Amino acid sequence: MPDQSILIVGSVAYDSIKTPYGSRLHTLGGSATYSSIAASYFSSVNLVAVVGADFRDESTFQSHKIGMKCLTKASGETFQWVGEYRDNFSETLTIDTKLNVLSNFKPLLGSEEKNSEYLFLGNIDPELQKDVLNQMNQRPKLVVGDTMNYWIESKPKPLYEVIGLLDALLINESEVKLLAKEANLVKASRLILEKGPSILVIKRGGAGLIGFTSNDTFVIPAYPIDKVMDPTGAGDTFAGGFLGYLSAIGTLSKESLRHAMVIGSVMASFAVETFGLDRLDSLTDRDIRERYQNFREMTAFDTKAELRVPSRKQLSKK
Amino acid sequence: MPDQSILIVGSVAYDSIKTPYGSRLHTLGGSATYSSIAASYFSSVNLVAVVGADFRDESTFQSHKIGMKCLTKASGETFQWVGEYRDNFSETLTIDTKLNVLSNFKPLLGSEEKNSEYLFLGNIDPELQKDVLNQMNQRPKLVVGDTMNYWIESKPKPLYEVIGLLDALLINESEVKLLAKEANLVKASRLILEKGPSILVIKRGGAGLIGFTSNDTFVIPAYPIDKVMDPTGAGDTFAGGFLGYLSAIGTLSKESLRHAMVIGSVMASFAVETFGLDRLDSLTDRDIRERYQNFREMTAFDTKAELRVPSRKQLSKK
Repeated sequence: MPDQSILIVGSVAYDSIKTPYGSRLHTLGGSATYSSIAASYFSSVNLVAVVGADFRDESTFQSHKIGMKCLTKASGETFQWVGEYRDNFSETLTIDTKLNVLSNFKPLLGSEEKNSEYLFLGNIDPELQKDVLNQMNQRPKLVVGDTMNYWIESKPKPLYEVIGLLDALLINESEVKLLAKEANLVKASRLILEKGPSILVIKRGGAGLIGFTSNDTFVIPAYPIDKVMDPTGAGDTFAGGFLGYLSAIGTLSKESLRHAMVIGSVMASFAVETFGLDRLDSLTDRDIRERYQNFREMTAFDTKAELRVPSRKQLSKK
Repeated sequence: MPDQSILIVGSVAYDSIKTPYGSRLHTLGGSATYSSIAASYFSSVNLVAVVGADFRDESTFQSHKIGMKCLTKASGETFQWVGEYRDNFSETLTIDTKLNVLSNFKPLLGSEEKNSEYLFLGNIDPELQKDVLNQMNQRPKLVVGDTMNYWIESKPKPLYEVIGLLDALLINESEVKLLAKEANLVKASRLILEKGPSILVIKRGGAGLIGFTSNDTFVIPAYPIDKVMDPTGAGDTFAGGFLGYLSAIGTLSKESLRHAMVIGSVMASFAVETFGLDRLDSLTDRDIRERYQNFREMTAFDTKAELRVPSRKQLSKK
């Protein structure tokens, strides 16, 4: 039986982060963490990931009722990422990456997880993304993938295979250009849409999002945040909100996709306001509703009225 | 008698521009040029500016029916700006500036210009902006000003005086922070709104615009352009579209201001697609209407429907 819940594969990490506003050592992070917590506000979520013997944060997932039957606890240490944001966040430096238990991870889905209708292949080795997709009992209703420049450069072949199997690819602006080997964003996007995904969402940080399908383009600004403290996990959080909303709403219409992008954006705006998971972990439904409402009010300009542009002729008569 | 037309003071220049996509020597530019041409698509416009004996481009203004009674032709050469855009447009370098006739410019308004209801104080020496404002017969219905970091640093006192007299200030993100001496954009904007202007529009390039009034915040993305060729004049073009629309529509409601920002944005998107004035100079009303319609369609997500976020309780029952 298909199951409306969302299956999320990705990394669970301990991050050490330095930004212009401070630093945080050994804080819970990773693509699967951010995306599953964000999605959990909208739908039920199961996690496929690996942690080490040092892992002590099961309660974070439990508090969001995130299914952990496929969260493997392996001997060794949890994946670690050490990163630094410089120059007003224009530059992201990876100072150190310790794969640890991630290097030998073999995802193994249970019978429930194999029937998920919504699958998120979070930012992780494309071989693992493919492995999870292959284990599904049937093609999910929606398969969404994320990746990063590291995989585009180091594992292009399996990555292209995965992309060919996606319904939706979420990727940032420089990465889509790298992936398509095309400097023009619109052309690069069209090239990727020919490779398999019918939905492509370009994440542009403070510049917002552009969504492409074969016959639609949707553009939204980023939710304006007074002070971005830590952008870690923003893209994963977007993905979680995007999938969570689509799973809750149950349709993939143009309207649903547009709303899902707005919801993803709203969720990401919470993530970047504080370090790590601080804010994302403790939202209320009201927080989400209010920010969505603010977003709607701050971006609305469409009235029924046609644009009144006086014609040249009228002007010359003045 | 008040006159609904727009009076624009600013620079008329010969620009030499180098971008990652090519270069252009000695091409017509300047803040008054871009803004008056953009505004001319919506309303009647009069120019207050100075050019040198070398000036040969009167026909450009004539073709847009822009009033040139206050376009002074002085002995000497026209103002020249030599600029270069580097690093995918993230850096703008002023290679050379020759003020020429601009250094002794004394604007002198005629009786018609003194009655303009819409006044744009384009990017130029704040002493000249103040001078023009002082010559008006009565307070215009709307006084909009623009400036740049050069004036914030070199002439802060007269600039602050001018800002205190504006209804609307158009400024870019780094400049509003510099002006307010406050690194947080929202705080900086609130500080400027206390200094005089009741409307503040923050220009953020590819990230779009944020508009603030005392009780409204409006956020729009930039119109997505396949290939930005030359961003010169984008801000001035925005200003021209913004004022042109407001003058044509005749009201300053929240709705009108929001639409005016969209129209300004649409006009700027034409300006950056080609070098100099190439595209902006030759638009049809249909071009503008179509792009406005595209913008509307690409950004609309608001339906009457309330956001359906399943509550935590519902989720836990699953």
